[in-house]
Amino acid sequence: MRRVLYLDDLAVGRKFATGSVTVTLAACKAFAAEFDPQPFHLDEAAARESIFGRIAASGWYTASLSMRLLVDGELTIAGGLIGLGGDMTWPRPTYPGDTLRVETEVLAIRVSESKPDRGIVTVRNQTLNQRGEPVQIAVVKMLVPRRPPA
Amino acid sequence: MRRVLYLDDLAVGRKFATGSVTVTLAACKAFAAEFDPQPFHLDEAAARESIFGRIAASGWYTASLSMRLLVDGELTIAGGLIGLGGDMTWPRPTYPGDTLRVETEVLAIRVSESKPDRGIVTVRNQTLNQRGEPVQIAVVKMLVPRRPPA
Repeated sequence: MRRVLYLDDLAVGRKFATGSVTVTLAACKAFAAEFDPQPFHLDEAAARESIFGRIAASGWYTASLSMRLLVDGELTIAGGLIGLGGDMTWPRPTYPGDTLRVETEVLAIRVSESKPDRGIVTVRNQTLNQRGEPVQIAVVKMLVPRRPPA
Repeated sequence: MRRVLYLDDLAVGRKFATGSVTVTLAACKAFAAEFDPQPFHLDEAAARESIFGRIAASGWYTASLSMRLLVDGELTIAGGLIGLGGDMTWPRPTYPGDTLRVETEVLAIRVSESKPDRGIVTVRNQTLNQRGEPVQIAVVKMLVPRRPPA
């Protein structure tokens, strides 16, 4: 079992890595067919005429894959990764064949005033492709418990 | 074929609706197993001990379902719905059995200075459950083409 992290174990500037995943055309299309059935995610000819130039992954597929990488990665928060919301950008598309990983950096830590057994930790999750270019930058607020008294 | 909307057809304050979808336990678990395999999304006993109280949908499942509702909804932007990023919050969880729909309101419209054939439209997409409570609020910037000269 992996060691769990409490708010008390985190520090601003600390970084966490994940493994990586290679995006396949079939999986891109399957996700798009279910959740984002737009021609540039499904059809090569339509994608060529779009701003993407070729079939691109739905941004929500990039987001969902990033979540999976995080769940399996080093940021093993006690009680799980519970996001309250955040700020997301997709600076460039994810394309089939890309290999993605996520780099997390802790930006801020705040203990709750009303519930002192927990706090809000703000992190920047950058999803990077195989060239180290960000395909998603998400600044996210997470609910993180404090270490219980021994 | 549905009428497509250009930037010139939009106005601040204009609203757009979608159809609705009822979330099933099986689909929640299937999404979580692939993209967000945390116990409170997969296991009833674990969920009962979590802040969710029972199995809750992954926030990314709520986001993905919201995208599908938007693609099938009234906001039929020419060239498709192309999001550049945005600000998301999940004020409360989505639970199996919930019926979701999305309400969009146009917040801002800006023509690009460097590329006058397009612009950025900011919308608020609120995903509401069957009680009209928001489960996701996303303020999103979208790339929207201007109407081509006749």
